[in-house]
Amino acid sequence: MDSGNVAWILASAALVCMMIPALALFYGGMVGSRRILNMMMMCFGGASLVAVLWALFGYSLAFGNSVGGLGLIGDITEFPGLGQLMAEDGEASIPVALFAAFQLFFACVTTALVAGAAAGRMKFGAWMLFAGIWATIVYFPVAHWVFAFSSEDGSVTGGWIASGIEAIDFAGGTAVHMNAGAAALALALVLGKSSGWPKVEHAKPHSRPLVLVGAGLLWVGWFGFNAGSALSAGHSASVVFLNTAVAASAGLLAWALVERVRRGAATSMGAASGLISALVAITPACGAVSPLGAVAIGAIAGAVCSLAIELKYRLGYDDSLDVVGVHLVGGILGTLLIGLFATDAAPNGVSGLFYGGGVELLGVQSLATVTVLAYSFGITWVLAKILDKTIGLRINPEDEMRGIDLAAHSELAYLTDEDPVELGSPQRA
Amino acid sequence: MDSGNVAWILASAALVCMMIPALALFYGGMVGSRRILNMMMMCFGGASLVAVLWALFGYSLAFGNSVGGLGLIGDITEFPGLGQLMAEDGEASIPVALFAAFQLFFACVTTALVAGAAAGRMKFGAWMLFAGIWATIVYFPVAHWVFAFSSEDGSVTGGWIASGIEAIDFAGGTAVHMNAGAAALALALVLGKSSGWPKVEHAKPHSRPLVLVGAGLLWVGWFGFNAGSALSAGHSASVVFLNTAVAASAGLLAWALVERVRRGAATSMGAASGLISALVAITPACGAVSPLGAVAIGAIAGAVCSLAIELKYRLGYDDSLDVVGVHLVGGILGTLLIGLFATDAAPNGVSGLFYGGGVELLGVQSLATVTVLAYSFGITWVLAKILDKTIGLRINPEDEMRGIDLAAHSELAYLTDEDPVELGSPQRA
Amino acid sequence: MDSGNVAWILASAALVCMMIPALALFYGGMVGSRRILNMMMMCFGGASLVAVLWALFGYSLAFGNSVGGLGLIGDITEFPGLGQLMAEDGEASIPVALFAAFQLFFACVTTALVAGAAAGRMKFGAWMLFAGIWATIVYFPVAHWVFAFSSEDGSVTGGWIASGIEAIDFAGGTAVHMNAGAAALALALVLGKSSGWPKVEHAKPHSRPLVLVGAGLLWVGWFGFNAGSALSAGHSASVVFLNTAVAASAGLLAWALVERVRRGAATSMGAASGLISALVAITPACGAVSPLGAVAIGAIAGAVCSLAIELKYRLGYDDSLDVVGVHLVGGILGTLLIGLFATDAAPNGVSGLFYGGGVELLGVQSLATVTVLAYSFGITWVLAKILDKTIGLRINPEDEMRGIDLAAHSELAYLTDEDPVELGSPQRA
Repeated sequence: MDSGNVAWILASAALVCMMIPALALFYGGMVGSRRILNMMMMCFGGASLVAVLWALFGYSLAFGNSVGGLGLIGDITEFPGLGQLMAEDGEASIPVALFAAFQLFFACVTTALVAGAAAGRMKFGAWMLFAGIWATIVYFPVAHWVFAFSSEDGSVTGGWIASGIEAIDFAGGTAVHMNAGAAALALALVLGKSSGWPKVEHAKPHSRPLVLVGAGLLWVGWFGFNAGSALSAGHSASVVFLNTAVAASAGLLAWALVERVRRGAATSMGAASGLISALVAITPACGAVSPLGAVAIGAIAGAVCSLAIELKYRLGYDDSLDVVGVHLVGGILGTLLIGLFATDAAPNGVSGLFYGGGVELLGVQSLATVTVLAYSFGITWVLAKILDKTIGLRINPEDEMRGIDLAAHSELAYLTDEDPVELGSPQRA
Repeated sequence: MDSGNVAWILASAALVCMMIPALALFYGGMVGSRRILNMMMMCFGGASLVAVLWALFGYSLAFGNSVGGLGLIGDITEFPGLGQLMAEDGEASIPVALFAAFQLFFACVTTALVAGAAAGRMKFGAWMLFAGIWATIVYFPVAHWVFAFSSEDGSVTGGWIASGIEAIDFAGGTAVHMNAGAAALALALVLGKSSGWPKVEHAKPHSRPLVLVGAGLLWVGWFGFNAGSALSAGHSASVVFLNTAVAASAGLLAWALVERVRRGAATSMGAASGLISALVAITPACGAVSPLGAVAIGAIAGAVCSLAIELKYRLGYDDSLDVVGVHLVGGILGTLLIGLFATDAAPNGVSGLFYGGGVELLGVQSLATVTVLAYSFGITWVLAKILDKTIGLRINPEDEMRGIDLAAHSELAYLTDEDPVELGSPQRA
Repeated sequence: MDSGNVAWILASAALVCMMIPALALFYGGMVGSRRILNMMMMCFGGASLVAVLWALFGYSLAFGNSVGGLGLIGDITEFPGLGQLMAEDGEASIPVALFAAFQLFFACVTTALVAGAAAGRMKFGAWMLFAGIWATIVYFPVAHWVFAFSSEDGSVTGGWIASGIEAIDFAGGTAVHMNAGAAALALALVLGKSSGWPKVEHAKPHSRPLVLVGAGLLWVGWFGFNAGSALSAGHSASVVFLNTAVAASAGLLAWALVERVRRGAATSMGAASGLISALVAITPACGAVSPLGAVAIGAIAGAVCSLAIELKYRLGYDDSLDVVGVHLVGGILGTLLIGLFATDAAPNGVSGLFYGGGVELLGVQSLATVTVLAYSFGITWVLAKILDKTIGLRINPEDEMRGIDLAAHSELAYLTDEDPVELGSPQRA
């Protein structure tokens, strides 16, 4: 075991954990001031539930030996409660307990991402139930497909995408972003639109600074997500890090530029969304492309997603915080663009179409894309429908108008003092 | 010296430093909008003072060779100004300068934690004086007891808890949380209640989103706190990390569940407090229990602390931000539950009662608990009384009503523009 | 290659990236509520542009082999697009791709720092153009002077400050802070004062809590900046870390003390500024002084900068967010104080005047200071003048009064709901 590798994955896991409060800020700033607490609670609550399920059985489902060698689901009985992970495994390159902790936060963040489609109108209890079941029947299996590699000695069989068709998904374009995005679409469809949508004044971003700070901290956390996925502190992680840095920047610039051309002004919401879109798209590709390829993928993602978020108005679904436009579309873009931009000069790449490779890689990437998309959308839709018909997903319209924070959490986000000196008056002291 | 270990402790020290702004957010969001600056200044100012004292003599008191071999206090003359730490020590597993920097932030954070009991009504100068003296006569000695281990060759004698009775306190359940909590109780008693307590409208949380973000960032920083306390990047740090992740999640869920059952709604304040309560409780135990044990300890802490914070209304002390209910009670729980849940399968554990061990461990843990609690409460009470009788601790009642920010810092936290377009009106541009 | 070193520089690069959102908070909180988005966009947008330029040619200009061996500028043709960095270099102590990513964020942060002088009144397009050109003709060359070291075998020639006169600038007192500060002064002079300056009510800090949090997160990121500049995880990084921790604390205390004495109250703005001033000053010195020396430098910087920020009122330039008073003055202080406080007992130090060395070191430090200051100020002034005469730098006065956020980004930072329950009323649920 190499302590340098361990050090980096420890740091990476902490960085990925930071994506939870960062996402809560990013999403929370985007909703109205009477909806932010619920949004943040969906992130924190969903993540916490998934973390506990991960310890109980989720890690086994995702990283247990594949049942029947089919690459579809891990053996749920393999690591119950993760107690075995306390034993040192002299042959592991990093402690299995650390790998489990690192991947734990992937599950948490992915689940929390879905919440963005349900802003302001979903019962909190229903969300928690949804989150727990969704992680169990959608995320854990898909993580198995994509992230579980067969062991070299053949004793452990991994997932069909990772070790079967061998699609390239370095840190989760399919398992994380496309998965969350497709689930968000299904949930938004079943849940229905906010009252008055798309004219929902009170659902407008109440604090764009929080959105920007959230995006910035997500960027920081993403280095753990992507460069940590190298599972070592060496050349691969370094190139991944560099690619992640420049792709994000290109995405911000591209979105801002499109906005400037189309609307005359680059907005802060666009800049934040461009940054995140590019991070989404580079996630599967970060180990397989050159820095210029990363710039290209980031820029394409920023530009395309800036258009994609308007789809909801045309097609009429209330994907409140653009999980579909950013994570689904960005995830698809990144996964497919690998087929074009991948290069065998990159530490984890093979040659894509632009680098003399054939279309085969593009085919494999497409297969992974379509399958994850279909599975996630389909199962999520059914799950949401069942919950809607049984316990009900929506809060009542009065509570929605009044603001879900009061209704679901008995709280208001912001209180001001009733003070002798008026807030906002020039400071006199 | 192993560079991987050094890398992780460098990162951990940065993470623990992040707990200072995170705590300032967590506490700052919990107070009224005319008290937040003072709250944040108590955190930053107290931490800064303690950091300088640490360099001057605090490190010597905590980690110097025990005076007289008694395990009570380190030799203050041993590392004046920390100049010796510039010399390389070929035999140290990590550079002593790094250990000193890592532990420096423990001292800072612990002192800042105490501030939560004194929100909105303590003279800033008195707080700074209190913080400096408290660190010197309470924190530095207790850190010596708990964190200073005797060297293997016997040349250096450590603290009586660490190397005498050998109680288990991996990262500071006694020295940090119980210590801060007991001091907070003493300070709150001497300082007295806020005017109008417990009906203090203007002292209500003015920004719950800040509380949640602060809690989230505290969680991130806590990985440095707990997993960094392994002082190496290996198996032990990895298990600690995993335990810290799942315990925190279980704490959030438990608190939320209790609230839901008792009051019909899970609040964001409860979620944040549940997360922190569990982190407090797992701090001493993180290296000694299994992941399921960590889930149990986290859940117990979340549930019990959610009840414990109501004690102040029954007993009538104004522990404004629940330092007692969360840190004292959580710290006691974590320290004692080790006696039940510790397992020798864990990297830093021995068998507790539930794993075939006897009650002896529980006895040792109780002894450490009672002693730290008594010492911290007693000395802090005397210190606060002396300061109150001499320089005075309270600001005057008018300033308290008007808001301490103006009185103590000549500032208001928030100013709004007087602009032609009214804030809050639908955006027209 | 040592994985521990790689792990720490990976973590450090992520920490330096965090300085971008942290700076956006720090600066954003200091401006009015109708100027914050623009301020944050200047940080994020400028940083993103510089990151892409870095990949295209900036890294070559800064770290390419010095053209003509003169130490003035790197060979722009050496690493186009950074594609070569995908190849493993077995002899590098850390992967070159990682070094490029780490230094990328230095360029981003330095450019973003300049924005503080232009708060609330600069066209966003003009800022972006300025940022891109400024990085190219000022930052990249100066980074070459200061940060590019000649290779030991003589095959690569570095910059004239690093490898010619061998001034000590561990992490960028000249290249980063003095550079940004001098450029900020030039830009402020060309741009002109805000309308109504210095009585600009609507430009006052609208959220001091954001300023404090931003300062706190900058502190955390700074550990990556300074201790990461050791480019290894060992004794040097450890001492640097310790020095950075105590210097910052001393700076906060010194500024607060000066304020308390001069004005009767220690403000949160002062505390935040004192922390940052000291971090600026310790940046060049962190590897060359003892912990007590670091405390002294931090305290001097805090005290002196607290006076220096008043210069703008006497001299009449609108350095809105005190980039000059904090970064220029702090950078000069730190660079020169090395000549006094440096000690050869420190891992990267030689003896300064106070430690038995001669005045030679002070002379070398002065030469580096004067040159960087003159170059940065001069070129920036010319660049700003040219842009002002061609595309124009200022927004129109009506937009400035109305708030630049609406004018430049078509957005307001904060929207409140129009809700039945009034915000600020006691919570009823």
